[in-house]
Order: sequence, then C-alpha cells, then structure tokens
Amino acid sequence: MSTLSSSPYKGTRDYYPVDKRVQNYIFGVWARTARRFGYEEYGAPLLEPLEVYTAKTGQEIVSEQTYRFTDRGDREVVIRPEMTPSISRMVAARRQELAYPARLFSIANFMRYERPQRGREREFWQLNADIFGATGPLADAEIIELGYEILKAFGAKKPMYTIKVNDRRVIDAMMHDYLLLDPIQSELMVKLFDRKNKISNEEFRDQAIDIFGPDKAADGLKKIAGLLVARQIDELPKEIADNPAVDELKHLFSILKKRHITNAAFDITLMRGFDYYTGTVFEFFDEDPENNRAMFGGGRYDGLVGLFGAEPISAVGIAPGLSTVELFLTSHNLLPELSSTTEVYVAVLGADQLEGAQELVTKLRAEGVNAELDISGRKLDKQIKTAVKKQIPYLMFVGEEELKKEKYNLKDTATSEEETLSFERLVTRVKDRRRKAGDNSDDLFE
Amino acid sequence: MSTLSSSPYKGTRDYYPVDKRVQNYIFGVWARTARRFGYEEYGAPLLEPLEVYTAKTGQEIVSEQTYRFTDRGDREVVIRPEMTPSISRMVAARRQELAYPARLFSIANFMRYERPQRGREREFWQLNADIFGATGPLADAEIIELGYEILKAFGAKKPMYTIKVNDRRVIDAMMHDYLLLDPIQSELMVKLFDRKNKISNEEFRDQAIDIFGPDKAADGLKKIAGLLVARQIDELPKEIADNPAVDELKHLFSILKKRHITNAAFDITLMRGFDYYTGTVFEFFDEDPENNRAMFGGGRYDGLVGLFGAEPISAVGIAPGLSTVELFLTSHNLLPELSSTTEVYVAVLGADQLEGAQELVTKLRAEGVNAELDISGRKLDKQIKTAVKKQIPYLMFVGEEELKKEKYNLKDTATSEEETLSFERLVTRVKDRRRKAGDNSDDLFE
Repeated sequence: MSTLSSSPYKGTRDYYPVDKRVQNYIFGVWARTARRFGYEEYGAPLLEPLEVYTAKTGQEIVSEQTYRFTDRGDREVVIRPEMTPSISRMVAARRQELAYPARLFSIANFMRYERPQRGREREFWQLNADIFGATGPLADAEIIELGYEILKAFGAKKPMYTIKVNDRRVIDAMMHDYLLLDPIQSELMVKLFDRKNKISNEEFRDQAIDIFGPDKAADGLKKIAGLLVARQIDELPKEIADNPAVDELKHLFSILKKRHITNAAFDITLMRGFDYYTGTVFEFFDEDPENNRAMFGGGRYDGLVGLFGAEPISAVGIAPGLSTVELFLTSHNLLPELSSTTEVYVAVLGADQLEGAQELVTKLRAEGVNAELDISGRKLDKQIKTAVKKQIPYLMFVGEEELKKEKYNLKDTATSEEETLSFERLVTRVKDRRRKAGDNSDDLFE
Repeated sequence: MSTLSSSPYKGTRDYYPVDKRVQNYIFGVWARTARRFGYEEYGAPLLEPLEVYTAKTGQEIVSEQTYRFTDRGDREVVIRPEMTPSISRMVAARRQELAYPARLFSIANFMRYERPQRGREREFWQLNADIFGATGPLADAEIIELGYEILKAFGAKKPMYTIKVNDRRVIDAMMHDYLLLDPIQSELMVKLFDRKNKISNEEFRDQAIDIFGPDKAADGLKKIAGLLVARQIDELPKEIADNPAVDELKHLFSILKKRHITNAAFDITLMRGFDYYTGTVFEFFDEDPENNRAMFGGGRYDGLVGLFGAEPISAVGIAPGLSTVELFLTSHNLLPELSSTTEVYVAVLGADQLEGAQELVTKLRAEGVNAELDISGRKLDKQIKTAVKKQIPYLMFVGEEELKKEKYNLKDTATSEEETLSFERLVTRVKDRRRKAGDNSDDLFE
C-alpha cells in the first residue's frame, strides 16, 4: 500500500501540545471572564439543517463558503459556519423553560470554505457570548464590556485597540433617508463600505458611482465625503440624526464611559456582514500598525429567534475568534510563557526501582501533582532529555538510595538547580510553583 | 417565510447549561486525571482526507457510517469518526520533534451515521489518551490504570464494572492455529464474536456452522464451547498458549494486580472492532444488570503511525465516550448535584441603584466571584424567580440602604437563609462555598 500524507486537511491546523497550550490559555481567559459576568456555557451540534442558514446568515457565506452536503438519509446539512443561528434555534426550542435575561456562552469550532490566510483558517474557533431577552443600551453595553474585560484579562491596554460602534438603523437611515438609495442599491452600498479598508479610494469611488447611477453620483459622493470627514455622532445630518437609534447610541456611549471604556467610538462606516443584525453593531479593531485589522465584533439581532416559530426574543452578542486574538496577543507581546501541564517527570535510575517509583508517582498524583513516570528503562541521560524536551518544570530522580532514605532529588529543568527534599516538601515546592504561575492553571470544565 | 424547525439535526443533542454542566463535569474529570498521569492535550482537525480511514479503521465504519463528502475543491473528506488515525498522522508528521514516550490526550467530538439509541448519538464525544513509543505490558497497564483512575475519580467502586482483556495475537492464534480457519473465515468469526452478546446462542451457533463449513463445523463448535467454558488464561489449549502474547498478558495481569486493579480479567471472546489493533485489547464493562454493556475500550495499534510514511512507532490507547460514561454514572447514582457556574445573582431594588449595583458587581468580579447583574428593571419577585430558575446559589439585594451602609443581604437560594454581610465577608462566604464544592470548579483549559 502506498504511503498516506501526514499533512492536515487544507486550511485546518494540528494543535500539538505546544500549540494547544496557547489555545487553552485563550479559551481559559474567555471561559473565566464569561463566567465572571454570569454567562453559562452551552453546546450546540456540529451540523445544522441547511435552512437554518439560508434565512439570515448572508448570501456569500451560505452559497460560497459553507461546508454543505447531503447526508445518507438525504438531508441537506451544513457544518456550522457560525453559532448565532444555532443558539437562536436552541433558545426558541426552550423559550418557556429558560430564565430571562438568559446569558449564554460557548467555545466551539466552525468551518467556512475560504482562502486560508494569516489569521483565517477554514476550521476556526470562537467564543460566542449572548444575552437573550434584554433590549436597550444596558445589555449592549454589557456585551461590549465583556469584550473589553476579556482583552483586559489578556493584559491589553486601551491604546492597543479601538471599539468601533454603529447601529443597523443608523445605516438604514444613511442609505435610505440620506443617500436616497433603494433597497437593492442600499445592499450594494453596505457591501461596498464593508470592503472599504481592502480597496483603494479610487475603486471605492468608481463602485459608488456605479451604485448611485450617473444622475445621482455627484450629490451622493459629496454626501459620503461629508460623512467620512465628520464621523462624529453629534455632527450627523438631520436625516440620520432624527433616527431614534442615534439617541440610543449616545446613551450607550455614556454607559461605556461610566464603565471606563474610553476607547469606544462611533463609526458610521462600520457595517458588519450578517443579515440578521437589527440594532447596535460593533467591532474591536487592533491599532497595531503591523496588524491593523478587525479582531472580532458582534451586535444586536432581535429577529432571529422568532424565525424558529417562537415569540420574538431580543438578543445581542459578541464572538471573539481564536486566530485573530492570538495575532493580537502576539503582535502586542502579551502571550505568556507556557510550560507543560505535567509538573514532575519521574526518572528511574534502575529497573529494580521501577516498582518503588510507580508507588511514589501514585502518591504524587493522589496529592494532586501532575506526574509522568518514565517506564522506558533507558539510560538516565535519555530520560532527562525527554523531560527537558517536553518542557516539564521538574525532574525527580528515583534510585535505591532515594527510596531507602525517602529523600528525593528535585531538579528545576529551567534553572538546573537541584534540591534534596522529603516527599511532603517536594509536593509543597511543586504546588508553590503552580500557585505562582497564576493558579489559573486549572480551568475550563466548570 | 415559513417557520423553521427548532429541533437539532437527527442524532445530535443541544446542550443547554443544565446538560453542559454534566458534560463539563465529565470532561473535567477526564482532563484532570489524564494530566495527573502526565498526558498533554492536543487538538486535531474536524475533517480528514478519506484515505486516512480507508486504510485501517474497519470496513463497516468507513463504507456505512462515515459522514463523507466532496469539498468545494473536489477533495474527498470525512468528518472524523474517531481520533486514532488523526493522532497517528500527527505523530508521524512530527516524529523527529516529539519526545518519547509521548503521552497525549484530547477531548473531542466525532460523527458516525448510525441509528441513534440510548447511549449512542451520531455526534458523540470522547476522551482519547495514548502513549506513543512505548512497547510492552508496562505501557498497556498504564493505559488501563488511567481508565481505572478515571472511574475511581467519578466515585466508582470495583464491583460496579469489570475490565475485559484480550490480545489480537491470541485472537489470531485462536482463529488460525486452534480453530484452523483461513483469513477470510477468521475475519467472519471475529465479527461473529463481536456480535455475540447481541444475538441468541442459536443464531451464534448457526452462523458459526456457516463459517466453518459442513465438514469442520462439529469439531469447531466443540472447540469454541471448550474455550467459552474455560476462559481462564491458564487453561488455554496448547495451540493458543504457545503464543508469546499469552506470557505478556500474564505479565500485564501481574502488574495490574500490583496496582490493585483486581477487577480485570482475561476474556478470549473480546474482539474490538477496529482493524488497526495489533496487541492487547481491553474493554470496560458496566456490571449493573440494568445497564449491562461495554462502556469503552482501547488497545495497542503498533502499525498505524507507519502508514503515514514514518518509522513505525508503537502505540496504545483508550477512548472513554461521554454518553456511555454518563449512563454508567446515572445507573450507579454517581452524578453529583451541579449548580450554575454563576455564584451570585445581584438583584436591584430600584432604578436609582443600578449604577451603584453595577460598580458593586464589578468589584465582585475583580475578587474572582462569578456575578450576574439584573439589568431588567423588573419587580423584585421576578428578579428572585430568575435567580432560582437559573440555580444560582446566592442572591444579593442592592437598594439605597444597602449602598449607603455598605452591608448587603445575601440569600442562599437553596435554603432561603439570609445574612447581612459586609462586602469582604460576603466574598469570603461565596468562596468558602466554592471550596467546599470541591474546588474542582475551575478546570478544563490548562
């Protein structure tokens, strides 16, 4: 038989322990912060019926980017490309049993058939945190605060990023009441604004002219230019400023200011791609010149739960992604050094000591120490090399002498310092290290 | 637009917080125990190329049970139906960089197109723990001990289950050297033994006669009957007993006995379905008469890594599944009461106190307390009902008086007891409860 390739499927990643540590560090901060805010974890299926997405997810994702197929029972299914429709479906299914406002979060993987690039993989991971059954700026502010606190927990400072905020109703007022576009033109213009940072000013202007049509292009472009210069929420033209969403946005900013979130700002050019948004939309944007990009965002989607036959239930959510957060942490030098979760590697000096070492390692585990036993019978230098290669903080040597005297050599693999310790002292030493390392060591599965 | 169904895709489950708590409890015990033994976590892609499975997974799974499809780039892919081929591929890809023996674990979801039934879903979750690069009974014993310690961590006692052990080489000797079957007959006989507990004795006999053929059936059935009566490793016929695997099995049982694992026993009828097993195979079997079934198993598969173009690397692993473990815990009444991860629900007495309550809840979170704030502005009785429905252990009331005096009413939602406490005392009270609840509260993402 011919040899099989050992590469992962295109656009997906193998997470070896050294990579998984980073993923778990990020997941741990996400889960811990969400729980601090009273969000409870849920899980949704990997596959959903296709209809769940055709309704509101956005044309491009469904028709070009989904992993869809027909199952062996002739059902059209999709590997979830996002979480919002799934959790909306779940809330609809138990709308009577849930207590509101319901605060829910999940950490899950998704798939989209996109061109893989830096910060974007075909299989990707997201935190999704949502409030169901709460309307108004207080709920919107809480969701933004959650994103802010997550970045704070990673050690981020406010100047490192900005939070751009807009409202779908403001966008509608801008397109319809101010730029005087019909629904089809509006949709095209929204998509054009969405691409604004990825194309040149000339391209933007040319495509805008196409959308306005020859008669209205000059006036339209002038209005857009005006909006792009001003950008302040207090300087909006009357056609937009009269929309009640503007007052709600002002209220939202006043709450954020009280919460000391001073790096949030109104941005009328922020669109957000999903069709289901109905109110506030926002985006966390990395200000590092080397990594100047949207990190993640969210918004209000009051109409989605109602699609599943339930009374409409209002909803607002946020969805940080693993890859973009990892890029942010890397670009701002915020990722901590992460060693193995194994704390002690027990090296055995001779075959006769294996049984004693086995009992010792069992005692260590009973004390809550993560301990790996070398059962290979190899020479000591090979055992030591293994522990170092695995980035295990401590090495413990077990020979005849050690078992007789019940004193053990403990070596710090980073500093090469050695100490001879009783079993109890040794356990204390290892646990002290764990505490110093932050004690966040034990985390996800609450 | 017509209403969308709110049901999950057939054979999958929605995990609401109350279900997710159980899942996280089980995942937490798995992850913690695997780490205690020095296993490090990894993650593998959701999709693999089809070839990864056609080689060795077993005909039935690949041709009848996989979720396979062609992606938008014309690649034949499969939603992983199991982890063993993926981790073997990953080890092969980094065979030079990894330190051996490599101890690796993951907790992940899989899909198989099977008829959903009790303890079996189309999307299912497993722990996979494997040792790469260690041969012999010591490694096999460690993997079995890991399964044993996991069940012990759940509170299981030895009489609740047995560990059946066999060896693929013993099976081969039985089929080829003792029952004198050719390779095709052997394969059929293995599959027949695999189904033995699901069919009647008559069906078993009739199908065995078909496999032996008329001439050899009488002799063959007599031999099988003899094996089924004896079953002891010391009473095997010479044709099987001469195989070196039998001595290794005896060595394995002697190690397990030293580790106090006295509920493990040789079982020559244990086959295990996967084609890749080459040595020891084992199965943890629930002895509850109401739930008498295989829970999970594992074994040695020394040939799989080599398929990916690497030097052969020996491997042995175990894969407990979520649904069967949950059934085991339920049938033996071992599942603990699990409350919300949110510890304090902050009820606000009047709109004027919302801002003060907001600051208070921020202080609680900074102290590491998981606190949810009611921002609904509803009447107090509705806020209380919400906290109780969410199974949040404590309710805290914030009104004008409380903010002025800096003393707060804390109500235990289970006992309805109330206390008036300073902020510091309140934090201590909440943390004491968490400690008493086991302090395993923070767990997965190390």
